[in-house]
Amino acid sequence: MSRNILIINTGGTLSSVMKESGLAPGLSTQDMKRELHVVSGDINFEIEDFMAVDSANIFPEDWSKLAEHIGKLRNDYDGIVVIHGTDTLAYTSSMLSFMLQNINIPVVITGSQLSITNPIADAMENLRCAIHMAASGRAGVFVAFNRKVMLGCRASKVRSLSFDAFESINYPNVAEISSLGMNIDDSTIPVRNGVFHLENNYSTEVCMLKMFPGIHRSLVESIAAQGYKGLYIEAFGIGGMPFLKHDFISTIEKVIADGMTVVVGTQCRYEGSKMDVYETGKRALESGVLQAQDMTSEAALTKLMWILGKTSNPSEIKDYFSLNIAGELKNY
Amino acid sequence: MSRNILIINTGGTLSSVMKESGLAPGLSTQDMKRELHVVSGDINFEIEDFMAVDSANIFPEDWSKLAEHIGKLRNDYDGIVVIHGTDTLAYTSSMLSFMLQNINIPVVITGSQLSITNPIADAMENLRCAIHMAASGRAGVFVAFNRKVMLGCRASKVRSLSFDAFESINYPNVAEISSLGMNIDDSTIPVRNGVFHLENNYSTEVCMLKMFPGIHRSLVESIAAQGYKGLYIEAFGIGGMPFLKHDFISTIEKVIADGMTVVVGTQCRYEGSKMDVYETGKRALESGVLQAQDMTSEAALTKLMWILGKTSNPSEIKDYFSLNIAGELKNY
Repeated sequence: MSRNILIINTGGTLSSVMKESGLAPGLSTQDMKRELHVVSGDINFEIEDFMAVDSANIFPEDWSKLAEHIGKLRNDYDGIVVIHGTDTLAYTSSMLSFMLQNINIPVVITGSQLSITNPIADAMENLRCAIHMAASGRAGVFVAFNRKVMLGCRASKVRSLSFDAFESINYPNVAEISSLGMNIDDSTIPVRNGVFHLENNYSTEVCMLKMFPGIHRSLVESIAAQGYKGLYIEAFGIGGMPFLKHDFISTIEKVIADGMTVVVGTQCRYEGSKMDVYETGKRALESGVLQAQDMTSEAALTKLMWILGKTSNPSEIKDYFSLNIAGELKNY
Repeated sequence: MSRNILIINTGGTLSSVMKESGLAPGLSTQDMKRELHVVSGDINFEIEDFMAVDSANIFPEDWSKLAEHIGKLRNDYDGIVVIHGTDTLAYTSSMLSFMLQNINIPVVITGSQLSITNPIADAMENLRCAIHMAASGRAGVFVAFNRKVMLGCRASKVRSLSFDAFESINYPNVAEISSLGMNIDDSTIPVRNGVFHLENNYSTEVCMLKMFPGIHRSLVESIAAQGYKGLYIEAFGIGGMPFLKHDFISTIEKVIADGMTVVVGTQCRYEGSKMDVYETGKRALESGVLQAQDMTSEAALTKLMWILGKTSNPSEIKDYFSLNIAGELKNY
């Protein structure tokens, strides 16, 4: 039985062309179709232009519209591929993992490091992988890149130039392509625990801050004064923050008392936060911060935006945040 | 000929003890000495307590004092080992690489993921590696961790829990320990191009910002309004930033025109920025931002602090920033 796949093009390098100002979005659906027949095998596909932007120019409102669009089409296709720039791909794939609650088909986000018009590009390879994952019947939000498939909420762009740009952080790959074909590890795919519902609200009142030595508490005070409701901090190591001299943790306590939600993760790429080990981390936990644990920064930030779009009740926020929603968090 | 090494203890996990509030600095010089005789072989060493803090509590003023202290002692020892918490170790090792210009002896920073009092810790192994590198006669600032030696300005903490916590980013390891002993690759060690001079001034008016989708230009405006003179931005991919809708790049142009130095790097862990490829990056470059290129975020941030401690002349700042000072930057 032949599968029907929809390919939604949002832009990015894959469909980019060289302009005087540098590489920029440009390839149309018609151009893409000709190229794509090579990779699709016996899978039927349609392709549509949804937007045409470099993904540095993808904004939260685009996530919401994309989720709504996919939600509407979810029963018309066996799977959906989203072509997306690589720069913010992992933020989009994380947020779609939360917005497309219990999606009933595969939604596979992909992109490339070189344009499909370039004969040595990774574009065809990545699309082939995405299309075949979209036709696999596995429900969920995934990222396909460089012959690997990852959970959407675990992917992160770790290399700025290589074709092997994405890694699944603190979680195994969902599938790998080798001479044995596409080998899907079904144990990595979260089990659906209900019917689909679209939850595409979000808060834009969320800020991210990467900790650095000498960071002054006035920076956090200023973020609070600007009206942000949520703050995700990439702290040191397993979640340490300074409490001597310019006492940072006291300021965190204060902004939490004033109603801000503060999540602390780590600026280490791998292995996450574990704040109950050191004095610095324990003090932060006591002040009421939530921990990102093994979530990526992309997942922790978008999850915070998503939760604050649903509720402003502190105990509900805490409950949602510590719940594993799409595979982004180990069940501790 | 026996070598004389000084071990300077600043605290961190390596010399930590369990307290009611969690792991915290505590082991004294005397306690350490007993443990250390096992690893030093025929190398003479002295050990001194410089400070005793979790490295989340290391501040720029500590870098300056440590550099001054090492500068004074540089002719009294064949090498110096600095014991340091791992959380901010890479920031300290980067800044010491700039402050200790043309240092004439090895300065080797190390730490551990478990306390030396723990029998299964990595502490002894890391100290052994650091002490032997300090006795190697190779001048420069290095990090020793998990049987590897890295340039101080290339090390970064990438894993929050594993013993293999540090990697040399975009640069080969300086040395590795195997059954062949310590194999030092001398081609990786920058050649000294002058006599030692201490340059331990710095500016604390430097801020770091990690880009995220939906980031609002008012965040940059507020940082400028707080009087920061320098801003290091971890942008997307090879250096992309949004210019549609909430036009971020126009705001960057404005704060640069008002006298702020803006450096753009990447939030991808590997392979650095290369902003002349895409329209988004080219627009940022045209607005006057400096590129971090293949520097780590730790090196780019501390280099910016260090340069702004020397000069406020824009063309001098640009010159210094694009100059490879300690091996932190490929010569393009």
